[in-house]
Amino acid sequence: MEFSLIDRIRQLTAQHRDDVRLGIGDDAALLVVPPGQELAVAIDTMVAGVHFPVGTAATDVGWKALAVNLSDLAAMGATPAWALLALSMPGADTAFVDGFAQGFAQLAQSYRLALVGGDTTRGALTISVAVHGFVPPGKALMRTGAQAGDAVLVTGTLGDAAAGLQCVQRNHPRDEAQARYLIERLNRPTPRVAAGLALRGHASACIDVSDGLLADLGHICASSHVGADIEAALLPRSSALLDLFDDTTSRDLALSGGDDYELCFTVPAQHVAAVQADLAKLGCGATRIGRVVQGEGVRVRDREGHWLESGHQGWDHFNA
Amino acid sequence: MEFSLIDRIRQLTAQHRDDVRLGIGDDAALLVVPPGQELAVAIDTMVAGVHFPVGTAATDVGWKALAVNLSDLAAMGATPAWALLALSMPGADTAFVDGFAQGFAQLAQSYRLALVGGDTTRGALTISVAVHGFVPPGKALMRTGAQAGDAVLVTGTLGDAAAGLQCVQRNHPRDEAQARYLIERLNRPTPRVAAGLALRGHASACIDVSDGLLADLGHICASSHVGADIEAALLPRSSALLDLFDDTTSRDLALSGGDDYELCFTVPAQHVAAVQADLAKLGCGATRIGRVVQGEGVRVRDREGHWLESGHQGWDHFNA
Repeated sequence: MEFSLIDRIRQLTAQHRDDVRLGIGDDAALLVVPPGQELAVAIDTMVAGVHFPVGTAATDVGWKALAVNLSDLAAMGATPAWALLALSMPGADTAFVDGFAQGFAQLAQSYRLALVGGDTTRGALTISVAVHGFVPPGKALMRTGAQAGDAVLVTGTLGDAAAGLQCVQRNHPRDEAQARYLIERLNRPTPRVAAGLALRGHASACIDVSDGLLADLGHICASSHVGADIEAALLPRSSALLDLFDDTTSRDLALSGGDDYELCFTVPAQHVAAVQADLAKLGCGATRIGRVVQGEGVRVRDREGHWLESGHQGWDHFNA
Repeated sequence: MEFSLIDRIRQLTAQHRDDVRLGIGDDAALLVVPPGQELAVAIDTMVAGVHFPVGTAATDVGWKALAVNLSDLAAMGATPAWALLALSMPGADTAFVDGFAQGFAQLAQSYRLALVGGDTTRGALTISVAVHGFVPPGKALMRTGAQAGDAVLVTGTLGDAAAGLQCVQRNHPRDEAQARYLIERLNRPTPRVAAGLALRGHASACIDVSDGLLADLGHICASSHVGADIEAALLPRSSALLDLFDDTTSRDLALSGGDDYELCFTVPAQHVAAVQADLAKLGCGATRIGRVVQGEGVRVRDREGHWLESGHQGWDHFNA
């Protein structure tokens, strides 16, 4: 335990929660899960140059490290509570740590999430965050419940983060509002926590779009033993994406681009309108993009009704 | 989530536990903490070349990555239950992954600990493990309760792991039994889980010796607002350590060497004999090495009663 760095982070992320009996500073934290709640836990790692461009601002790295994990809780319909942080960095860069902690804390405060443990080590810039949330027994959203006939929906818009990465890599002029918007979507993803909570009891299956729509919807299909047919024309795309990229490119980014952290979920067809209305009240639009079918795998139909060739695969580390 | 690698690890580490409602394979695991128990959580990271020598066998890396975390639970007096694993490695090295998983599983099975979540990413070899255990409310061992007059004890022997590291670095002939023993202590530390459980209700403060006795006992002193006087002659040293290193070197390794993962704890003086008897039943010796005093900091007295000069500091990443 590295006291000075973790203490800095603790100071910047301080949150009082009654369920934290003992926070950072001993060999372990002591926590209390509310009676009758299940504990949802997930861990995700970000490596500089793999999960975010080298040179990304420290505040953005801190935000995103927590956001990608909150997105996992969102996809389960869980209420965020606590996080653990493991930060490896090449040296004792206090400016980076301060920025990181500020970005992390900014997002944590939105959810009254408490950082309850941490470890800093010397190494290549790598951040692992473990998050903990609560969900009532039997109410968690899983990947296994999609049924043929269900509608497939996604929150927000798709492809923005992958487009933002292209803007960064091509050194797109930052003063263009659209490029700034897309880069913000890459660096500061919005975990759809409120949407996930609203989907409890309504969605038959849910996942967050981290590896790209086709890859992640494919996980729902594999887990649920079903297939899915997607209409490319229905994919929600931001005006920034459509302004900066041609139709085919933006469609492919929406199909396969990772890092959007929107929720992709399935809903019995008769409940689509009600679910969309519920999410709209939260300021989170949801678009119907296709339907669950018998069979396996995800198919995509273009505007003219032709099935698109495969090859639009989301990336998957090691297995690409 | 990288299915192939994490699936391999999952297969090799499979443990059935009723409190795991949903394990690896969705966006988060769903877990149930037993009613009335507090949850103890900790996270620790190991970086190749920093926390273990480059070239350490994969099975040893897997064992140690879990052991150092179980040691944190041991120091709290918590019963291990679940772990999350974040593994960064340069490529999809399945031989490494299999070895890692075997070492991890071997230790996990001793505690029926279930791996409930994981993430593998491409990057420098870095392993973060988050562990979860249970402890009855108010029964956890903390760093804050040491009082002047308490005895200071440690389990097992000290300095072995640091000596083992010297054996590795100096390419000490591996066929010497003593060197093998010390290297095994470095690579396969024994988390003192049973001892931690036995100390509940008896120890006034407890910590695991990861950074070295002086550094870690110093944490107890700082947290408890006390000092500690240690008798160098009482430091428990293995015969392997004494055989391979001279008296001064072995003493200094016992004072400052990290990575032993023994427990250092304080006990009211009148309970020392009973606690030692309890631990002996578990096959875990505990040696009285000094006492808690008013004041601050850790002082060390040699055989002749002279106070040793400071400078025997345990290492602390970044802050050394």
